[in-house]
Amino acid sequence: MSITEFSLIEKYFYRLKAQRKDVALGIGDDCALLKVPEGQLMAITVDTLVENTHFLPSTSPEDLAWKAISVNLSDLAAMGAEPAWLSLALTLPTADESWLEAFSNSFFECADYYDIQLVGGDTTSGPLAVTIQAMGFTPPAAALKRSGTKPGDLICVTGNLGDAGLGLAISLNKHTCLTSKHEETLKARFNRPTPRVAEGIALRNLASSAIDLSDGLAGDLMHILEASEVGAAIELDSLPLSEALLAECDHQQAIQYALASGDDYELCFTLAEENLEKLENAFKSTSSKFTQIGRIVGGTELIYTSKGKQVELILSGYEHFHEL
Amino acid sequence: MSITEFSLIEKYFYRLKAQRKDVALGIGDDCALLKVPEGQLMAITVDTLVENTHFLPSTSPEDLAWKAISVNLSDLAAMGAEPAWLSLALTLPTADESWLEAFSNSFFECADYYDIQLVGGDTTSGPLAVTIQAMGFTPPAAALKRSGTKPGDLICVTGNLGDAGLGLAISLNKHTCLTSKHEETLKARFNRPTPRVAEGIALRNLASSAIDLSDGLAGDLMHILEASEVGAAIELDSLPLSEALLAECDHQQAIQYALASGDDYELCFTLAEENLEKLENAFKSTSSKFTQIGRIVGGTELIYTSKGKQVELILSGYEHFHEL
Repeated sequence: MSITEFSLIEKYFYRLKAQRKDVALGIGDDCALLKVPEGQLMAITVDTLVENTHFLPSTSPEDLAWKAISVNLSDLAAMGAEPAWLSLALTLPTADESWLEAFSNSFFECADYYDIQLVGGDTTSGPLAVTIQAMGFTPPAAALKRSGTKPGDLICVTGNLGDAGLGLAISLNKHTCLTSKHEETLKARFNRPTPRVAEGIALRNLASSAIDLSDGLAGDLMHILEASEVGAAIELDSLPLSEALLAECDHQQAIQYALASGDDYELCFTLAEENLEKLENAFKSTSSKFTQIGRIVGGTELIYTSKGKQVELILSGYEHFHEL
Repeated sequence: MSITEFSLIEKYFYRLKAQRKDVALGIGDDCALLKVPEGQLMAITVDTLVENTHFLPSTSPEDLAWKAISVNLSDLAAMGAEPAWLSLALTLPTADESWLEAFSNSFFECADYYDIQLVGGDTTSGPLAVTIQAMGFTPPAAALKRSGTKPGDLICVTGNLGDAGLGLAISLNKHTCLTSKHEETLKARFNRPTPRVAEGIALRNLASSAIDLSDGLAGDLMHILEASEVGAAIELDSLPLSEALLAECDHQQAIQYALASGDDYELCFTLAEENLEKLENAFKSTSSKFTQIGRIVGGTELIYTSKGKQVELILSGYEHFHEL
C-alpha cells in the first residue's frame, strides 16, 4: 500500500459528525468506549461481504458500503433493536484513494441516515472484503427471537419478495428487462436493500418471532420453525410481489424468486391474530407495508397452499451467487 | 462449499460451555443479546488477520485462532478493560473440515482460558481471513487512553521486546537459529502472543497512558506522543531483551528488532514516578514483569539515548511481513 494503515483510517474514517452521546471515546485509541443505556440489552451482529461471493467485481464502492451496513442493520431490525454503533474491518487489494473516498462517503451517508456511529475500524491489505459488526439496544422483554411462535399465529412479511433475486439475475446478464425503469428498480433492491429498522421496533411486544430474509423465505422461515418447534403453511397467492417483478417474470418464476432467492432483507415475523389491529396501527408510522402470507401450524413441516389447497413446489437453493 | 454456512456454524462454533451470565442470548438468532454491567463502559476493538499479509500460508489453524483472539485481547488490555465477548467473521476458501476442527478447538481453548464467550459469527467463502471483534468492560474513570501523559512520567513496557520480529524472520527463513529451543521460543512469540490482560487491569488508575505494541515500539509510542502532545527519550540500554534474542543476534540487531519490528503485543505505558511503588505491588499478581525504558519529555520528538547520551538510529519500518 502506498499510504499506511494509520493514515488511511485517519483520512477516510475519522469523522466527527454524528458523535453520539453514548460514545465516551470514539475511533483513534486502542478501543472505543461505549455506554449502553441502563436497563437495555445490547444486540450485536456481524456480517462479511466478500467480492465474488456476495457482490460482483462491478459493484460500485457506494453500493458496497450501503449494502454492508444495511445487511447488518437488517439483523438488528429482526431483533427489534435500535441501531447505535458500527465497527468496520475493510480488506483492500490496493489503497485506491478514489475508491476509498467513494466508499467512505457512502458509508457515512448511510450511517448518518440511521444515526449510527462508526466506533472501530481496521484496514488491511488483501482480497476485497468488508466485515461490519452492528450494535444496538433493546429492552430485554421486547427482543424478537426466532423462538416463541405457536400454531395459529399469522405469518407476515414486510415489503415485497423476490425483487433482489431478479436484480441479481439482471446484474449477471441472466435476465434482460423490458424497461430500464424495472432494471434500475430491481438492481437497486439487490444493491441497496432497505433494512426494516422502524418496522422491527414497531414489532416489539407484538410479534411472537421474527427473522430477516437474507437467504430466501423458504430457508429463513425454517429457522423460525426449528427454533419454535412448529410447522407452517404459506399461501402462495398471498405472497407480496412487486409490479416490476410481475411485469418481468411469469407468475411461476416470480414465486420462485419470492421463496428461494435471497438478499431481500425484508422481515418475516409471526403474531397472534388478536395483535393484528395493534400491528396495523404500529405500522402507520413506518415506510413499509406488511402482508399476511400464511399461518403457523402443528408439526415441523413447511407446506405451500394455493387457493387453500396444498401444492408441491421444487425450489432451487440460494447460497449467494457464487453457487448459482 | 460442500456444507452450508449454517451447518458450518452449527457444527464448529455452537458450544454451550463458557456460557457467561451476561449473555442473555448467544449464537443462533439474528443477534446476540448482551448485558453490560451497570456503571461500566463497554470497550470494543476489531482486528483482521489476512493470509499473506498478517500470517503465512504455513501457519497452523491452531496458531491462527489463538493469535486472532490474542491481538484483539491485547487492544482491550491496552485500555485496561476486562474481556467478556468475541464475534468472529471467518472467510475460508473451502470448507476443509479438518482445518475447521483444529481452528475451532484452539479458538475455544483460548476463549475458555480468558473466560470470554463467542457471541456472534459469520462464515463466508473467499480468501482466508479472520476478523474478530472483542468486547470488554472498564469503569469509566479507569480506562487507559493514549492521551494523558506529561513530561517527567516514566515510560515502561511489559515483557521483552523484539522476540516476535525475530520469530517472523525465522519463519521466513531469513534467520537460522543456533538452537531448536530458541527457534521454538521465538516462533511461538510471533505465532501465539500473550495478551497482557491482567497487566492492563493492574495499570488502572496508575498509568497515565497506554498502548499495545503491534507495529513496534518506535511507531506505537509515537501514537502516545501525538495524542498527549509530548516527546520521549528512550534509553536503549534499558530495553528488555530476552536471552534467546541476545543469543541469536548481535546487540545492534537486537535493538532494531526491539524498536522496529512488530507483533510483540506487549504493553507500553507511562506513569508518574510517585506511582512506581504501587505499580510494583500491582504487578505482583501478574505473570509479566515491567521495565522502565525512558521518560516523557517536552517537545514532540522521540529521541534515543545510550549511557545517558543522545544517539542517532536509522530504523527500518514494519508494516507486517508483506512489506518487509
